[in-house]
Amino acid sequence: MKRQGIFLILLFLSTHLAIGQRARDYNITIGVLPTGKWNAITDVPGVKVGHTTLIEGETVRTGVTAILPHAGNIFQEKVPAAIYIGNGFGKLAGISQVQELGNLETPIILTNTLSVPMGIQGTVKYTLDLPGNENVRSVNAVVGETNDGGLNDIRGMHITENHVIKAIQGAQSGPVTEGNVGAGTGTIAFGFKGGIGTSSRRIPETLGGYTVGVLVQSNFGGNLTIAGAPIGQELNRYPFRSAIEKSDGSCMIVVLTDAPLDARQLERLAKRAMLGLAKTGGIASNGSGDYVVAASTAENMRIAYQTAHTTDTGNVLRNDNISPLFMAAIEATEEAIINSLIAAKRMEGNGRTIEALPMDKVLPLLKKYGVTR
Amino acid sequence: MKRQGIFLILLFLSTHLAIGQRARDYNITIGVLPTGKWNAITDVPGVKVGHTTLIEGETVRTGVTAILPHAGNIFQEKVPAAIYIGNGFGKLAGISQVQELGNLETPIILTNTLSVPMGIQGTVKYTLDLPGNENVRSVNAVVGETNDGGLNDIRGMHITENHVIKAIQGAQSGPVTEGNVGAGTGTIAFGFKGGIGTSSRRIPETLGGYTVGVLVQSNFGGNLTIAGAPIGQELNRYPFRSAIEKSDGSCMIVVLTDAPLDARQLERLAKRAMLGLAKTGGIASNGSGDYVVAASTAENMRIAYQTAHTTDTGNVLRNDNISPLFMAAIEATEEAIINSLIAAKRMEGNGRTIEALPMDKVLPLLKKYGVTR
Amino acid sequence: MKRQGIFLILLFLSTHLAIGQRARDYNITIGVLPTGKWNAITDVPGVKVGHTTLIEGETVRTGVTAILPHAGNIFQEKVPAAIYIGNGFGKLAGISQVQELGNLETPIILTNTLSVPMGIQGTVKYTLDLPGNENVRSVNAVVGETNDGGLNDIRGMHITENHVIKAIQGAQSGPVTEGNVGAGTGTIAFGFKGGIGTSSRRIPETLGGYTVGVLVQSNFGGNLTIAGAPIGQELNRYPFRSAIEKSDGSCMIVVLTDAPLDARQLERLAKRAMLGLAKTGGIASNGSGDYVVAASTAENMRIAYQTAHTTDTGNVLRNDNISPLFMAAIEATEEAIINSLIAAKRMEGNGRTIEALPMDKVLPLLKKYGVTR
Amino acid sequence: MKRQGIFLILLFLSTHLAIGQRARDYNITIGVLPTGKWNAITDVPGVKVGHTTLIEGETVRTGVTAILPHAGNIFQEKVPAAIYIGNGFGKLAGISQVQELGNLETPIILTNTLSVPMGIQGTVKYTLDLPGNENVRSVNAVVGETNDGGLNDIRGMHITENHVIKAIQGAQSGPVTEGNVGAGTGTIAFGFKGGIGTSSRRIPETLGGYTVGVLVQSNFGGNLTIAGAPIGQELNRYPFRSAIEKSDGSCMIVVLTDAPLDARQLERLAKRAMLGLAKTGGIASNGSGDYVVAASTAENMRIAYQTAHTTDTGNVLRNDNISPLFMAAIEATEEAIINSLIAAKRMEGNGRTIEALPMDKVLPLLKKYGVTR
Repeated sequence: MKRQGIFLILLFLSTHLAIGQRARDYNITIGVLPTGKWNAITDVPGVKVGHTTLIEGETVRTGVTAILPHAGNIFQEKVPAAIYIGNGFGKLAGISQVQELGNLETPIILTNTLSVPMGIQGTVKYTLDLPGNENVRSVNAVVGETNDGGLNDIRGMHITENHVIKAIQGAQSGPVTEGNVGAGTGTIAFGFKGGIGTSSRRIPETLGGYTVGVLVQSNFGGNLTIAGAPIGQELNRYPFRSAIEKSDGSCMIVVLTDAPLDARQLERLAKRAMLGLAKTGGIASNGSGDYVVAASTAENMRIAYQTAHTTDTGNVLRNDNISPLFMAAIEATEEAIINSLIAAKRMEGNGRTIEALPMDKVLPLLKKYGVTR
Repeated sequence: MKRQGIFLILLFLSTHLAIGQRARDYNITIGVLPTGKWNAITDVPGVKVGHTTLIEGETVRTGVTAILPHAGNIFQEKVPAAIYIGNGFGKLAGISQVQELGNLETPIILTNTLSVPMGIQGTVKYTLDLPGNENVRSVNAVVGETNDGGLNDIRGMHITENHVIKAIQGAQSGPVTEGNVGAGTGTIAFGFKGGIGTSSRRIPETLGGYTVGVLVQSNFGGNLTIAGAPIGQELNRYPFRSAIEKSDGSCMIVVLTDAPLDARQLERLAKRAMLGLAKTGGIASNGSGDYVVAASTAENMRIAYQTAHTTDTGNVLRNDNISPLFMAAIEATEEAIINSLIAAKRMEGNGRTIEALPMDKVLPLLKKYGVTR
Repeated sequence: MKRQGIFLILLFLSTHLAIGQRARDYNITIGVLPTGKWNAITDVPGVKVGHTTLIEGETVRTGVTAILPHAGNIFQEKVPAAIYIGNGFGKLAGISQVQELGNLETPIILTNTLSVPMGIQGTVKYTLDLPGNENVRSVNAVVGETNDGGLNDIRGMHITENHVIKAIQGAQSGPVTEGNVGAGTGTIAFGFKGGIGTSSRRIPETLGGYTVGVLVQSNFGGNLTIAGAPIGQELNRYPFRSAIEKSDGSCMIVVLTDAPLDARQLERLAKRAMLGLAKTGGIASNGSGDYVVAASTAENMRIAYQTAHTTDTGNVLRNDNISPLFMAAIEATEEAIINSLIAAKRMEGNGRTIEALPMDKVLPLLKKYGVTR
Repeated sequence: MKRQGIFLILLFLSTHLAIGQRARDYNITIGVLPTGKWNAITDVPGVKVGHTTLIEGETVRTGVTAILPHAGNIFQEKVPAAIYIGNGFGKLAGISQVQELGNLETPIILTNTLSVPMGIQGTVKYTLDLPGNENVRSVNAVVGETNDGGLNDIRGMHITENHVIKAIQGAQSGPVTEGNVGAGTGTIAFGFKGGIGTSSRRIPETLGGYTVGVLVQSNFGGNLTIAGAPIGQELNRYPFRSAIEKSDGSCMIVVLTDAPLDARQLERLAKRAMLGLAKTGGIASNGSGDYVVAASTAENMRIAYQTAHTTDTGNVLRNDNISPLFMAAIEATEEAIINSLIAAKRMEGNGRTIEALPMDKVLPLLKKYGVTR
């Protein structure tokens, strides 16, 4: 079928080619901590990311992004996790069980608002079908979303469960494609084309040597600020300046780390991601669904689905040592959002055109404000 | 098709016939406050309930129950609402938006654990298709569940979005069918057949004259207690007595009232429903998904989707006057759970048989413990 | 000084004599799990309880109760802890730090509403003065309260920091005095004299063999129910029956266990105590301050204030094994509340007289309802 | 007594003289919304602020700041309120009752960590003594703190209840003294002298014309950023650069508005203040107690302590119109923090000296980064 063909081509593109550049390609440095090798969420060992990108005809501009905390059967080997809600105008599925049990048992899925049911359906079917899960009758899928209804025919509900399963199955380690891919295909941020962005930080060995990786689906507004430079103001685009400039929208943020954190600590870490969002100029407006899913990939913290042991042994990081991770999450979130904007390209869809962030105008401003030289 | 035919017959039965008896038919009185006319959630003016019951072949024993807070377009005329989580091992969808915005914009749907995606999908499609909602691109469906995988082939995912839409469209005021119907078709409580139950209380005119109605989907365990009588112990069935008696399971509880409560107060009201559950012997075990959705149907508290006004005017009940409503919620929840057990009949399914609560043994015990004479 | 003399005598009495009887002395059995040796919170190894009782002149009827999770320097060896709020009309100090860091660093203090500042002051001074704490500049005192303003001149603020320090320093293991002692000296429950009550449960060895101990300060209302028997109704005293019967008031509940639970799990455990309160007929009315402080005394879960290690190693109980502890907390809370009522004696104070629970009337009712034979 | 004499002189100074300059005096502009007349929390009509400053001998450097939402008897005319916890390593009193009932019934008090008990004691006594409160027996004082133990002999507990009462009674409208006054006397921020700061924003008439005012007690760390300029990095002072630079500390933030917001909405507003803190470089480190108290002073939202009415009528702002207030809270918080730093002067105390923010070095940096010209 034609649809399937287009889909496969795009899937290929989205996982093998880097479309777009990144903040550091322009010498934009955010924060003070060093990045990981790929400056991506995949710098956290074992983490994989997969995208399904749907661009069809005039109206379909959407997709799915899957983030896998480890390469095994996540249901059988759950990871400590938490969800923090910056602003809850959204439909993220799976919140209460993560909060109650303190763990994550599926890949994290991002998609569009009205495709959350298919996101759950696909994740559940993927999980039920895994070897070893034959008797599983309850799966808590974590599926986040932002509303891409500006560029995408969202009411058409074009995402299927197979799109979800393919994003999971196609997940890879290494560099992550950013911009108009996966769940970021049709999103808009600060009035420009948004999308998927990622970044990472590695804290010094003397402070633990842990890595924090962040991936965002940017679809929100505010007064765009890049490394402190007031780009939104300079471009005369910021909230409440006029009826045209709206700040609504949402941002999904995924924070993974190999630091041995328990659920309580991961909620604290998740909370810091919103501080990173703030630095890009986001205001978490009324209509925003700003959710942060955080999980620890530390092997000694894994939670077996079934085991003969009645207790789990873990070496949990002491509260006293967590602050560097907080700073890492803030920096990586800020940079992931900026990366999403720089990577995203002009997009037409659903009768509307959204321009990319005009780097030709932005670069002189970054120089003016001392961000670059 | 054959499946559809069976479905229609059962739908007819479930909304027009009262199958099973109720606590008060046995002179079991719970609490001190008077009930409403039907002793059902539908005593709250404007409330409707609809069931889709799926009993097919040897393995399908499941369904959908829809609760509508009013007869209009709920998306256009939202109601104040809150969700309280007694124990969050569950998949209830829609939590964060209800908590953030303090309102409900769809019918409340109950179904089985793995059918939450279809529950959302059906509710969203129903909402998108309503006249007036042509431009709606975001819908927060509230869909709760319990796991009926004991009697039902839950991995088969037999609920479709049409089953959901039919439960909504078939909703009626007046008496509510209880027991093995709708979302209660395949549930198990205290080791016996559970299901849908309902009850209501009307507080005295001097205290406001408001009605509180409760509907439950009982699927949990504990040390069954009926109006104070230790039935579980007498029948030698209670948690941790042996490996056989498990307490896991879940209970979905919906609390509606015509009292003018805002979201903060509704969360408080919702919290009290768990106190009613406690009186039936429930312990909210680790594996339980115990969720309470509460909403106010008071007309002066409706929240228009769009309006020229920048403020909403409401006459919110003062905190000082809320305690009688708390007591009403506790009593109605306790009775709704007991009603669900009494109404539910023996069920075979998925290779298993679950007996009904044996009233022949229970009635003498109720007499022994002074509940009845 | 005279005040000091009276105080010392009462302090002596309250820690060495058992004033009043207990539920089990009347053959009232609550629940199915066995109790610990003392049927008291002190059955949890290492736990101590101390009371300072203030009965002076016509108007002073108040006190302080201190619960120590272990015998060491709690600030230096913190314990995992959580606080659950059943209804937050109260002044419990220390909530946010316990929730954020997941630990408790002082004894738990109970007193009257307006003496919380002195409760904090005394606890902080006690902590600052402990050997090893010379450089401590921040102490998070957990101080709960209920309002004993019915029998006590609460506006007189008669509790001093020394009363608090003496309750801590006088804490003992073994049997716990109940009724009109310590923080329970002037409290009222269900219209009768309330006070301090305690109980414990020990779960079977096959389920872990852990102990759960509960101590309550009962000062709340509702429809009094003893082991299922509707005593309040039979005595014609229950909320909203008339203007006289009010349900307001509060209940402080402390739950300790030697099970190795982390903060997230302790919050879950704390939540169950409210289910026990429900079974006594409590409704958590608007004016109620119902707080549950839970902590684990498990030695392997202690959190050193300062250490060279960057991680803490613990053997945390798996979620799957927690349900028996939930049931234990429910049963022990219910029994602790009933114990508080049975132990409490008639009290005159502040121009008012509150009768004890009339056991001469209650015992025949317990027989009528099959609680006793 | 000498102590009293010094105290009175300082009190006089702190309420009548503006010591120090402000961000806008240096042409530093933060955000895009206009300020109120005084660019202070007192721009919200009816709001008053009072300071008690304690500077005595070599070691006492502390104080109290009181913020009054209106000029009347706050206990008799409560205001809608909420508290958001950015990071809960702190002792703020009064949290749970504000969250449960959704209102504030006392002035908001700020002081040092170990003086919270005296803060409560003073606020309670002030409230009990107000005409009309003769029968009041329960007062929920909201008392926040940060730890000034670096410059102040905090273990000496030098604050008395009278210092608190005087801060309340001396509260005034109009300009607010900033820097080393009241609760900010001994605080440290970003390694420099912190203190009290304030700012306000007025949203356009077309968006409601409401005012949002913020007051902070800054005592925290991070990578100091002024209007986007990376001052901390340029001055080579930021967290984790070395063992010397610590990020711990706390920030108390008070947000008041005349917009008619209910408690749920005020919690949302409070949450945004942390986004403002983020923009100054704060990371909400492990040891930080970051609390935001928000209240609405709108007259139609007042909650009478006692009234014949069973409902309260309010014109609550619709969710749709709240985003401009969010932006206002973010901007005003950022500016209030910067103001606190600019106003604060070098302070010696307790054997330590903390320098003021070196504006001679900062101003060229602000020029370099385009903040000023």
